[in-house]
Amino acid sequence: MKLSQYFLPILKEVPAEANIISHQLMLRCGMIKQTTAGIYSWLPLGFKVLKKIEEIVHDEQIKAGHIPMLMPTIQPAELWQESGRYDDYGKEMLRINDRQDRNYLYGPTNEELITDIFRSNVSSYKDLPLTLYHIQWKFRDELRPRFGVMRGREFYMKDGYNFDLNEKEAIDAYNRHFVSYLRTFNRMGLKAIPMKAETGPIGGNYSHEFLVLANTGESTVYFDKTLLDMDTGQGKLDYYQNTDIKKVVESFTTPYARTEDTHDANIFLEVPEERRIESKAIEVGQIFYFGTKYSEPMNAYVVNPDGQRVPVHMGSHGIGVSRLVGAIIEASHDERGIIWPEPVSPFFAGLINLNHRDEECLRVCDKVYEELGTNGIEILYDDTNERPGAKFAKMDLIGLPWQIVVGPKGVAEGKIELVYRSTGEATLLPLEEVIKKISTAYKALVKD
Amino acid sequence: MKLSQYFLPILKEVPAEANIISHQLMLRCGMIKQTTAGIYSWLPLGFKVLKKIEEIVHDEQIKAGHIPMLMPTIQPAELWQESGRYDDYGKEMLRINDRQDRNYLYGPTNEELITDIFRSNVSSYKDLPLTLYHIQWKFRDELRPRFGVMRGREFYMKDGYNFDLNEKEAIDAYNRHFVSYLRTFNRMGLKAIPMKAETGPIGGNYSHEFLVLANTGESTVYFDKTLLDMDTGQGKLDYYQNTDIKKVVESFTTPYARTEDTHDANIFLEVPEERRIESKAIEVGQIFYFGTKYSEPMNAYVVNPDGQRVPVHMGSHGIGVSRLVGAIIEASHDERGIIWPEPVSPFFAGLINLNHRDEECLRVCDKVYEELGTNGIEILYDDTNERPGAKFAKMDLIGLPWQIVVGPKGVAEGKIELVYRSTGEATLLPLEEVIKKISTAYKALVKD
Repeated sequence: MKLSQYFLPILKEVPAEANIISHQLMLRCGMIKQTTAGIYSWLPLGFKVLKKIEEIVHDEQIKAGHIPMLMPTIQPAELWQESGRYDDYGKEMLRINDRQDRNYLYGPTNEELITDIFRSNVSSYKDLPLTLYHIQWKFRDELRPRFGVMRGREFYMKDGYNFDLNEKEAIDAYNRHFVSYLRTFNRMGLKAIPMKAETGPIGGNYSHEFLVLANTGESTVYFDKTLLDMDTGQGKLDYYQNTDIKKVVESFTTPYARTEDTHDANIFLEVPEERRIESKAIEVGQIFYFGTKYSEPMNAYVVNPDGQRVPVHMGSHGIGVSRLVGAIIEASHDERGIIWPEPVSPFFAGLINLNHRDEECLRVCDKVYEELGTNGIEILYDDTNERPGAKFAKMDLIGLPWQIVVGPKGVAEGKIELVYRSTGEATLLPLEEVIKKISTAYKALVKD
Repeated sequence: MKLSQYFLPILKEVPAEANIISHQLMLRCGMIKQTTAGIYSWLPLGFKVLKKIEEIVHDEQIKAGHIPMLMPTIQPAELWQESGRYDDYGKEMLRINDRQDRNYLYGPTNEELITDIFRSNVSSYKDLPLTLYHIQWKFRDELRPRFGVMRGREFYMKDGYNFDLNEKEAIDAYNRHFVSYLRTFNRMGLKAIPMKAETGPIGGNYSHEFLVLANTGESTVYFDKTLLDMDTGQGKLDYYQNTDIKKVVESFTTPYARTEDTHDANIFLEVPEERRIESKAIEVGQIFYFGTKYSEPMNAYVVNPDGQRVPVHMGSHGIGVSRLVGAIIEASHDERGIIWPEPVSPFFAGLINLNHRDEECLRVCDKVYEELGTNGIEILYDDTNERPGAKFAKMDLIGLPWQIVVGPKGVAEGKIELVYRSTGEATLLPLEEVIKKISTAYKALVKD
């Protein structure tokens, strides 16, 4: 994409309404524009990041054997009256009357709707296990929306629902979500730590939240430092080897890790002092097992192998897709701007022409832009007539992983500069080398 | 995907509430489930089709140089009061009050919101031309929602907006949309005919609707038969060669083609009788040029090359993404079920095992499933223990382009059957031949 043809409204000033760095940077980079309190338009650059995050979430869910679908944003009140949550949910639920004065709401979550779909179509244990999920806009009418897209009112969320014959199998599904979530966040360059959590308005028996450490987080968390060094590995995983998956979950749930809601200072003291960490953090996902809390009142029963009708066991599992855009920025930026992890970066590399009047510079830029483009690599080419300093500052601000800098001096020597945004490391290389290096890095990314 | 692990709730009966064939077939195939009047959940099979259509729309828009972004579903009333449409829009607008009793609405379209984004960020002719678009859920509170997803209340739409310095350049953008829309529908296997249209609540000077012929269409259309044989060609198109693009538009707008709203019986009589066609049709897209209708009241001005502030010229352009799912089925089905055009088919091929107890059949099915899967081809493998007749009927109903049939008799001879759904043509071929044929057909599709 040539910047002269793009829509990237960079703000020079730090917007007064933004208190945290991700909100400031998203506004400055022209990623979002507030429509009204807690509701945002995703401008082209922000939309690209949102889509990349969405695709990673889809991909990891499908790898875990979960089935994508899509429920609507508007739901009838009747379903929530059946579960008993219509009155319980309180003022955060956006209630709506249509032209015929029937009662609806803008879905804040989908336990009722998915349970209705399940009970209308499934009646035998033979169709289990089943996990359905969707990624859809939700609404929670927060009294004080804040922190930009991190605590907006209209937000984009992945929510998935498992249906199982009994508690044991539902816990298998819980564990599958646990591990797939770790992998999902890991692929976005995030270190997310699972922590024992309270269940809140979703209800239920077990719950874990996934938290990303960041000074600006709303939550305070307490955990054993060993968790920082753990991961789920890179290889292929069979999510239906339940014993193996359970072992991964156990390894992550054995060290102490709790949010302020579940924190127990006495147990925490048993962790050796040098490994005790207290930090601020941002919640990016949460999983729940809640047994028959919805299936019983809503009559979602299946016939079991003994011919008896039993209520199905369920859990629900959420990832804050729009919130992740902010969380990633909170976790990955410096004083000059954002540092995008490659898998979620809006473009893979930026191309800066230091002298748009120099024919050789133009020729080399066009060549880099075309050759990389032919390989499917997305390049943001700053072909404007701004001065070099402004171009560098802008490219650092929007934080693409690689910067390719073409100037008259280097070009005279047959060289261009390749800069790695996260370290600032810059090397002067022949054109072909730069194209090769970028192509290799891109191939390594796409292979994952 | 193995059917035993999928969620595909096939209905045996034709649902009573569905009056038209696409609605009946979508319900029978387990593509959608009605949540409440005019609001649907997209079950896994339906969601896959919706996504494929969405991707084609994105792809063709990007080829035309238009920039994707995303606006929220909920909009503040103030913006619509500025344009004067808040009162004009009537009861089809879903009006919403939040917990603090502020006025919002669920966007039925986005002229106001995009104009607000434009005026906040663009002030010079140098940033033009600019076309921004998004694909987002909309709501129109129809009094009588009907025809399934073809006239729902919550629906998925691509809407794009061009901003130009003057009428001439805005018409270039109009023409660009005209041609890119023809290509978009063509890629979905549809013959869409552009017809002179009225502008309705969007307003403006010019408008064309794109209509697909179908006996069940709501509109009556009148056109010159020559239009049926015209297309935009297959080659690469430079959308910014305005004169070339204009010629394509002129070739499509010269023959008579009008909806009942704009029909003129006297002019129609000038078409030679054997070429006069009257038909029912379904509207799948519409484009508008409306000049300064929104930019003037909403103060969206730019400085022109002479230093004067002038209101920007605009148009808006819509494609009914969710409606297209129904429209494609209306245009492509037979008495046994849907016949998906390859580019929008939920899976590329179906695989039927005629005897799930036969080890050779199982082995061959697994081999076909894995080899095609490795090439990225999506296969729906009916591995259930239903009888062959039921499997054939189900596969015909959901209408995947290719069916691969594995039975004990053929396998004993080293052969399996390949059936082309649209013609019913069946050939018995060696396994390797079938894999090669399917792979070749798939490659031809992906190349486009």
